[in-house]
Amino acid sequence: MRILGIDPGYGITGFGVIDSERGQSRLVTCGAITTPAGMDFSARLEIIYEDMRKLLENTKPDAVAIEELFFGQNVTTGIGVAQSRGVILLAIRQAGLEVTSYKPMQVKLSLVGYGNATKHQMMDMTKRLLHLNAMPKPDDAADAIAIALCHARSSTSLLAQAQKK
Amino acid sequence: MRILGIDPGYGITGFGVIDSERGQSRLVTCGAITTPAGMDFSARLEIIYEDMRKLLENTKPDAVAIEELFFGQNVTTGIGVAQSRGVILLAIRQAGLEVTSYKPMQVKLSLVGYGNATKHQMMDMTKRLLHLNAMPKPDDAADAIAIALCHARSSTSLLAQAQKK
Repeated sequence: MRILGIDPGYGITGFGVIDSERGQSRLVTCGAITTPAGMDFSARLEIIYEDMRKLLENTKPDAVAIEELFFGQNVTTGIGVAQSRGVILLAIRQAGLEVTSYKPMQVKLSLVGYGNATKHQMMDMTKRLLHLNAMPKPDDAADAIAIALCHARSSTSLLAQAQKK
Repeated sequence: MRILGIDPGYGITGFGVIDSERGQSRLVTCGAITTPAGMDFSARLEIIYEDMRKLLENTKPDAVAIEELFFGQNVTTGIGVAQSRGVILLAIRQAGLEVTSYKPMQVKLSLVGYGNATKHQMMDMTKRLLHLNAMPKPDDAADAIAIALCHARSSTSLLAQAQKK
């Protein structure tokens, strides 16, 4: 199963594509969709939407996992991220794909075993699971890969549960 | 000049189209794009996006005005509204139109003369400015018309300023 993981943003949207079979995962590609600060916000949304459509077309994932939003201190940034996430969800929907949302804590819990795992622990586990020598850059791509891995693990465990029945 | 005003939401997105010339405005059409509660969120975004495209195509506005988001108590609703606003901005951008954002307080100030105007005062002024016998329903459509009127007034005053120079 090919999984696309997405860490949404408007300046930087990280993405990571993995192939996952029988509990083993392999990194296919990763990177980030970026838009320049100071550009008209609607123009930035259009770039994110168009690039997301191309990414879905080029990588042909079977499933998509995306970070769920929560609002911390910076509400203004949060509104921008949510608007960007809207056009990303639209592109996924138009590609006929299902999307699953995961809270940051769920991703940490799935990969490292507890919800308060540090960034370093997350990076280390992501590297190990994918047999990488170095962590992909930028950090947003690494975060997106972790979300894809989280989905692979929850899909596997759902499958295991289904097979037990 | 034809102006489309939008009050964004995900359950209900109000819209109002007015024609405005030399300080006089006329209501062309108004209504709401609605999506059913309980439907998959991405499917709701797709409906909003498609209906907004059709609305732009059918009414052919020269300019678009939309309510700016701010986050009050209900952050979860706010995230949904922001995601919906993202796909609305995308549809406007793809139609080749400029969009101007107004804070609720700016709309009140423009129409009634002070930022803390009541809903009743706003409705009353909207009715008067458009020579209507009754206020359009739902409330979201009425709010959208007020946003369009606010834009007509700020465009007129900008024009007046430009002509003075």
